[in-house]
Amino acid sequence: MKDNQKDNPISSAKRFRKKVNNEPTVEELCSGVRSGRRSMLAKAITLIESNADHHYKKAQELLQQILPFSGNSVRIGITGVPGAGKSTFIDSFGMYLCKKGIKVAVLAVDPSSSLSGGSILGDKTRMEQLARTELAFIRPSPTGGKLGGVHRKTKESIALCEAAGYEVIIVETVGVGQSEVMVRDMVDFFILLVLTGAGDELQGMKKGIMELADAIVVNKADGINEASARKTRDEYNQILHFLQPSTPGWETRAHLCSSLYHKGVEEIWRMIDQFTHQTRQSGVFADRRSQQTKDWLHALITDQLLIQFYGHEKIKEYLPQLERAVVAGDQTVPSAVEDLFSYFYDRK
Amino acid sequence: MKDNQKDNPISSAKRFRKKVNNEPTVEELCSGVRSGRRSMLAKAITLIESNADHHYKKAQELLQQILPFSGNSVRIGITGVPGAGKSTFIDSFGMYLCKKGIKVAVLAVDPSSSLSGGSILGDKTRMEQLARTELAFIRPSPTGGKLGGVHRKTKESIALCEAAGYEVIIVETVGVGQSEVMVRDMVDFFILLVLTGAGDELQGMKKGIMELADAIVVNKADGINEASARKTRDEYNQILHFLQPSTPGWETRAHLCSSLYHKGVEEIWRMIDQFTHQTRQSGVFADRRSQQTKDWLHALITDQLLIQFYGHEKIKEYLPQLERAVVAGDQTVPSAVEDLFSYFYDRK
Repeated sequence: MKDNQKDNPISSAKRFRKKVNNEPTVEELCSGVRSGRRSMLAKAITLIESNADHHYKKAQELLQQILPFSGNSVRIGITGVPGAGKSTFIDSFGMYLCKKGIKVAVLAVDPSSSLSGGSILGDKTRMEQLARTELAFIRPSPTGGKLGGVHRKTKESIALCEAAGYEVIIVETVGVGQSEVMVRDMVDFFILLVLTGAGDELQGMKKGIMELADAIVVNKADGINEASARKTRDEYNQILHFLQPSTPGWETRAHLCSSLYHKGVEEIWRMIDQFTHQTRQSGVFADRRSQQTKDWLHALITDQLLIQFYGHEKIKEYLPQLERAVVAGDQTVPSAVEDLFSYFYDRK
Repeated sequence: MKDNQKDNPISSAKRFRKKVNNEPTVEELCSGVRSGRRSMLAKAITLIESNADHHYKKAQELLQQILPFSGNSVRIGITGVPGAGKSTFIDSFGMYLCKKGIKVAVLAVDPSSSLSGGSILGDKTRMEQLARTELAFIRPSPTGGKLGGVHRKTKESIALCEAAGYEVIIVETVGVGQSEVMVRDMVDFFILLVLTGAGDELQGMKKGIMELADAIVVNKADGINEASARKTRDEYNQILHFLQPSTPGWETRAHLCSSLYHKGVEEIWRMIDQFTHQTRQSGVFADRRSQQTKDWLHALITDQLLIQFYGHEKIKEYLPQLERAVVAGDQTVPSAVEDLFSYFYDRK
């Protein structure tokens, strides 16, 4: 998977051109991604994550060319409270897959809350082994932006990873409540990672979150934790018994795992394999992906509308003063909105 | 607060006109709300909650007239897992306020999840005493709609209740993760109601949610529960010690309450009183409201953009077939979006 541009005279020429504006062209990105070069995949994702107007159009052109080659992966979402051991689990699980020759991409979703400003996820140093593996691609969380934008960008990053030949896409999210539903809406299989032996307060999961999961994995089931991990698993299974399954026809169960000692990882992969086989047969797999494609269409529409509105010269000019006017109470919110739309449609 | 329309010949005439199209005019709604008539307030909120295009414009006109009379209340958000006793707490707390002569409105927010279809909140029968009280107004949760729409509609309902003279607005939300952040963003004070003596799994709260709260109330602190309630309170206080406070300068603490025996309710009101006094002095109260007003402006802009787009004749005509095309893989999502925008701007 090494950069072989040096051996290619055409690429070299393009590379020279690149140095002028310092950005690869859509064609370069497309062929770079398609040939599985991680550096080009990283650049393509950076383009997609950019909030600049001119990048948006270029990114959509790239996707247009890339999309026919996407879709051929198993998309796995993983959530859990901070400290549940998401990084070590993904490190262990990802290494297991890479050793089987399966290419793994890890993406992180972290809708930065207005409170915390968001925590950094997908940090390569957290997944020590996986970060050093040729078959793996790890991408930190994009910073800033609204939930809708994060949704679209992550969906598009998944497509890029697939076009680059990654067969398992892991989408990691921090368990702060907003992002789980969004990630569930873009993956095939959703794992809730829980703690054992930790304080009950932190361990507790809300009903809504449990109902999203296709599997609950009790992590750190090793050493002195093992007995309490079994107890925790049984407790979760008891609760799961009373919940609606996240995927029709699939029974969500709790499982034990020790990321540290690589125990239970193989069983989890076999379970996911069984899940995809079963849901492909029943049609649930395809139905879910269809719905997800529709959701993506609408996320993109919303994004476009907002970009066009807030990018409008007159909006940029008048928004600050209208914001001040509503805050000062000099104008009501609906009337300010009416004014803004008059500017937007050049009626004013 | 009785309907005094019968004694007013002008209102009678208007009432007759109303019978023709069966809907009160903006002027009727405005004066009805301003005079504190609950039936008119209910109709005004129904208008705001409507997803019909022609209602949207009328609702914004109404708000335009109403807004100068809004803002004069304490807005309190209340969340908690199902079973935490939100209804009984609000019933008890609301009755305490009404007995002091304070007018109380209860609104419910329940972003219907794609999984559950949403649960019914704000049901009048759940707040038996309060529902029979002249000084209280209880409004069930609007059904359907997206989170952005729910945000705007709830903000506008708060304004209507304030214009109708309600001095305390309680915004209740079910604890499923999506809605807490939204409600926190529209209230002055946020209460997290927790259980005691219940299973640890359900009781556990995630760190992100606790950081939103200005107070944690351990409910059902009575009878055989009292000892464990004290223990729960102390545990929460221990955790709170390590968290960022939700409101600058205000220390979030856990408190005991028995809604059943009306114990602790007075202390909670006194605490809220102290909070508003303190934050008004420090400027935090006004700053938060300013930010909330700005957020509302942007929520309204997004709403308008979506209404205009999806309401466009050509979009209505072509969206279904483009949805089918992307799902079938005949067209990529960005290209379908491009086509839709061409229709939207009549370039096609």
